[in-house]
Amino acid sequence: MTHFDDLMAFARETRALSLVAGRLGWDQETMMPRGAGEQRSEEKAALEGVLHRRRSDPRVGEWLSKINAQDLDPIAQANLGHIRRTYERSTMVPADLKAQIARVSSKSHSAWAEAREANDFASFVPVLSEMVDLKRQEATALCAGGPIYDALLDDYEPGATSQSLTAMFDALRPRLVALRAKALEKPAPKALEGSFDESEQMKLARIVAKSFGYDFKRGRVDKAVHPFSSGSGDDVRITTRTVAEDPFNCLYSTIHEVGHASYEQNVDPQYGLTYLGRGVSMGVHESQSRIYENQIGRSRAYCEWLYGEMVKAFGDFGLADADEFYAAVNIVKKGYIRTEADEVQYNLHVLLRYDLERQLIEGTLEVADLEEAWNARFADDFGYAVDRASNGVLQDVHWAVGYFGYFATYTLGNVFAGCLHQALRSAVPDLDDALARGNTGPAVEWLRENLQRHGARYEPREVIAKACGFEPSEGPLLDYLEAKFTALYP
Amino acid sequence: MTHFDDLMAFARETRALSLVAGRLGWDQETMMPRGAGEQRSEEKAALEGVLHRRRSDPRVGEWLSKINAQDLDPIAQANLGHIRRTYERSTMVPADLKAQIARVSSKSHSAWAEAREANDFASFVPVLSEMVDLKRQEATALCAGGPIYDALLDDYEPGATSQSLTAMFDALRPRLVALRAKALEKPAPKALEGSFDESEQMKLARIVAKSFGYDFKRGRVDKAVHPFSSGSGDDVRITTRTVAEDPFNCLYSTIHEVGHASYEQNVDPQYGLTYLGRGVSMGVHESQSRIYENQIGRSRAYCEWLYGEMVKAFGDFGLADADEFYAAVNIVKKGYIRTEADEVQYNLHVLLRYDLERQLIEGTLEVADLEEAWNARFADDFGYAVDRASNGVLQDVHWAVGYFGYFATYTLGNVFAGCLHQALRSAVPDLDDALARGNTGPAVEWLRENLQRHGARYEPREVIAKACGFEPSEGPLLDYLEAKFTALYP
Repeated sequence: MTHFDDLMAFARETRALSLVAGRLGWDQETMMPRGAGEQRSEEKAALEGVLHRRRSDPRVGEWLSKINAQDLDPIAQANLGHIRRTYERSTMVPADLKAQIARVSSKSHSAWAEAREANDFASFVPVLSEMVDLKRQEATALCAGGPIYDALLDDYEPGATSQSLTAMFDALRPRLVALRAKALEKPAPKALEGSFDESEQMKLARIVAKSFGYDFKRGRVDKAVHPFSSGSGDDVRITTRTVAEDPFNCLYSTIHEVGHASYEQNVDPQYGLTYLGRGVSMGVHESQSRIYENQIGRSRAYCEWLYGEMVKAFGDFGLADADEFYAAVNIVKKGYIRTEADEVQYNLHVLLRYDLERQLIEGTLEVADLEEAWNARFADDFGYAVDRASNGVLQDVHWAVGYFGYFATYTLGNVFAGCLHQALRSAVPDLDDALARGNTGPAVEWLRENLQRHGARYEPREVIAKACGFEPSEGPLLDYLEAKFTALYP
Repeated sequence: MTHFDDLMAFARETRALSLVAGRLGWDQETMMPRGAGEQRSEEKAALEGVLHRRRSDPRVGEWLSKINAQDLDPIAQANLGHIRRTYERSTMVPADLKAQIARVSSKSHSAWAEAREANDFASFVPVLSEMVDLKRQEATALCAGGPIYDALLDDYEPGATSQSLTAMFDALRPRLVALRAKALEKPAPKALEGSFDESEQMKLARIVAKSFGYDFKRGRVDKAVHPFSSGSGDDVRITTRTVAEDPFNCLYSTIHEVGHASYEQNVDPQYGLTYLGRGVSMGVHESQSRIYENQIGRSRAYCEWLYGEMVKAFGDFGLADADEFYAAVNIVKKGYIRTEADEVQYNLHVLLRYDLERQLIEGTLEVADLEEAWNARFADDFGYAVDRASNGVLQDVHWAVGYFGYFATYTLGNVFAGCLHQALRSAVPDLDDALARGNTGPAVEWLRENLQRHGARYEPREVIAKACGFEPSEGPLLDYLEAKFTALYP
């Protein structure tokens, strides 16, 4: 065994343990008896402790110091890069600081839930300030003199810089604001009404998951409060939810999670339990969930087929034809909540959060002033005012638990999806013929071949550029949105 | 923090991790997608590696050497005893030997399955000989000059000796053989016939589990190929199975597993994730599953209620009344398979295995002669001949995977159940009045108070003796069986 073999064997075991931790998380949201919560916390903490100690294990440092990357083939080098990066990030932050973040995170989560319930941001200010202060300390330890916010971004999107993201997001914002304003001026299309049997919704969700190539032999679909995808390789499970009045929620949550899951299922099996055997970043992951959900799932062609399936499942459900159906699943309407936003307004929600959290971490905005800053920016971009804190600054859990740097990946994912969609349409000009029959095969096969199979073999931007044949930018997403929503709201 | 506190914190984390491993096992049998098997093996192996290294971690040895047991209270001393025993057993066997057993075990499992399929014991002889040889080496490392077989027994029933077990089992055998012979001479009672809807069986299984006080807030019931109970404390899940022609299989498997699960659910919460917070041995565990299943679940009184529930679920199902029902669930009939055996013959199956495996480990029986020895003993004790190897020496997986010492705990559990039942009936003379209404409360409450809540606080025999008020022996089980089956087969 060479040092590299030793390191890889160790990393492989760590990866297997992290998959166990993921499975435990799935169990908690789907199967766990409700009285088991406290015990489960101890189980999770024990496993997280093992994982943390392995990521920063001194033996990893020794192996790394003894391995000469030039002796390795490119795949081994890519693995080494991931292992080195994880080790360095794990060892740069003092253990005390990490423990403090974990403690404040759990306190802050409860405080956030209470504040949201009471619509009282002021009560959340002290603990959120504590969290921001700790995350700034963490970022300072990680940034090595570089831009402080980028050090946090790097947790979710390795290699991304706030400089390039800010330029991209600043270019998106005015055209999205204009498109939103134009759509909201127009008469609203007919919306879905009525009640839809929830077990029929689940049946249809499984049909829809199958239509997107989700491999049920290596996965399963269950119900949970929040839809998510969990796992990697041969065991990638998704959850969805049902609301009697809103079957679109169930169907499009399912498609979204199938996008995440397919990325994990379709990585080249040769990468197995190495660092390469999974999605490379949150942004690239989100590009898959969003292109499945929106560019494909909400396309006019796919709606042709899905409308027929809705009729089979629910009979005459109030929308006259596939055109009305297409308009209804793409409706643009006023709303405060990011997770319920349409394609046009969604990214405006994200840009707002990105700008504010960057200022918090950079120290140019105080937590005490955050609600006012949120509400002002919201009024500017959305054209209507936030009515209460739970519909505004308190709606997301991310900041409460210290996830600064995460939001950006949502919009970056949409930008990547826009690029991939443009390349996909060039490569498969007659895609709509297949989609109209519920056959997403040509699309998902193109994504598998050009992107998903590479797992974490290449850097995030690099793999998107390879797949598209051009450098990613916000242009294709904007062009797609403007064409689609100008046609829908002429 | 004292050395003892450090040791306990470390042990607590190890315990939490072993619960995670158990949960993974449950998932594999109930929820895991069928394509995930190989990946799951790696996940399990990684977690088992962590657990093994923690059990034999040198820091544990150092803490143990620095702690003076006399400074500790009795509960702390009991914990220390378990930790010391586990550590010593983990460090006495060379790591190479353990790895070899694990490798041969997986090879042997496949060889056993093939041999059973082909009814060909000879093809299994080489690999089973290898396993026996390895287990003899392990036992030699563990026995410290004492009886070699006892070292293996100790894995499943700490403190038990082959000397006392052999005396007990030798006393059981002739009276069981006589009772079996007498019952089989008599005309057989009416057996259950027909087909029973499997989802109705599952509904009734849940009603039955509830009737035995199983806490669904801290557990759940699912279907699996083999019924089992999994977990401890606030998360104890059971599985059962359904066969359309045999609802008794589903119902009594459920009651059996509820017995195991209740023991784990009812341990005093103060013991939590310490070594005391779980069942103390396989024998005591089996006493709970068997007293729930047989002495209570197959009693005439409980059958009064269960018959009524069967009628509610299935209408007229062919048995005229609770008397016929009671006779049918207690039917004694010829059969080769241990897991399908009635209360009379079950222990004869176990005694046969116990005697043969002891000889294998002690070196007085060769694997090559095992089938002949099995068949001769079977004919002696059962009065009919084994027809093929899959109904004889190849029926159980235990030996293939190295579980020597395990079988004894099945009969020991029945013996303990006999003792507990005698004490329970003295303590609650009107128990049948409650059972006849489906109320097992007085019985399970007595078991909880006198036995289950103690977890692993006392030694196995000690906790049974405390609960019963007398030293455990085979007498009460034999008296119970003779009285019950003489009345059923007059």
